[in-house]
Amino acid sequence: MVVTTAKLLQRQGYHGTGLNQIVAVADAPKGSIYFHFPGGKEQLTAEAIAQSATYLDGILQRHAADSAVAALDSYLAGAATWLEHTDFREGCPIATVALEVGATSAMIGDACAAAFECLIERVAGWIEADGFAREVAYDRAFVVYTALEGALVIAKVKRSIEPINRLRAALPELIGSPA
Amino acid sequence: MVVTTAKLLQRQGYHGTGLNQIVAVADAPKGSIYFHFPGGKEQLTAEAIAQSATYLDGILQRHAADSAVAALDSYLAGAATWLEHTDFREGCPIATVALEVGATSAMIGDACAAAFECLIERVAGWIEADGFAREVAYDRAFVVYTALEGALVIAKVKRSIEPINRLRAALPELIGSPA
Repeated sequence: MVVTTAKLLQRQGYHGTGLNQIVAVADAPKGSIYFHFPGGKEQLTAEAIAQSATYLDGILQRHAADSAVAALDSYLAGAATWLEHTDFREGCPIATVALEVGATSAMIGDACAAAFECLIERVAGWIEADGFAREVAYDRAFVVYTALEGALVIAKVKRSIEPINRLRAALPELIGSPA
Repeated sequence: MVVTTAKLLQRQGYHGTGLNQIVAVADAPKGSIYFHFPGGKEQLTAEAIAQSATYLDGILQRHAADSAVAALDSYLAGAATWLEHTDFREGCPIATVALEVGATSAMIGDACAAAFECLIERVAGWIEADGFAREVAYDRAFVVYTALEGALVIAKVKRSIEPINRLRAALPELIGSPA
């Protein structure tokens, strides 16, 4: 049910996804949501966001490479392929919900914040392993990850992977060389 | 009605905003939407996105300064103040709708793509005026604007302007010096 919710949120957002649809797609008995998630749609969404973060972090780890630039380039190339494969209907599973209700639901906002933190930390770890100071590594990971979030939005509305490729080309400059 | 729609979309997104609410908040007669916007909510949304782009571009222009870094720093400082003022309930008026329906409605997707293009072009013009080659200026404006979109998402869920300030601190490095 959590995985189904994550998938639906990614395509339709929070307001576009109803509990009835979640139950129907997950083929679960209707009463089961409030048994498993007494906090209802809000709690189910927060868990779906946490699950998405674990899922994306797993993908990031599989792209680990000799350098942060190589790893990020491989991750972004994968993201571009997947955008095309889903005809740009999917995107960051966290950002849509974050923008819709991240400021009005503390439970969902906290889950989104923790998710972004986890992913940025993963990238920061790669940059640190390249020989950068911890603080510098975090700042650069932050810029790359936020730029990726923005590039995903623009790729979606342009229905083109060009924004992702533009960010890929900028990676060597954005990561730079350790002092 | 277009301004009301833009405001509601910014806070609630596309699926969270109903025609009845738009009519009620705009204090317009109920039948008037389909007279002015025969394409209904989709057309009204596309016009609200275009209006938001014009509005944001006007704000950008008011932050024009001696250098691109100074202008962007001033713009981001303003954005941070406004995020706090609205208790992080508002955000980029374009990104939420872009993520929700940018890939499923060509009319809305095109309006969002044109909006982002307009804003990135404004920033690229500033960087070019600093002495950068056109291509380089566009690439850097793209990175800064996409990072701003991502930073706005994270600021919202953290209910903190810290991500905006982190991006501000990175501006001198992101813009760099002309070759």
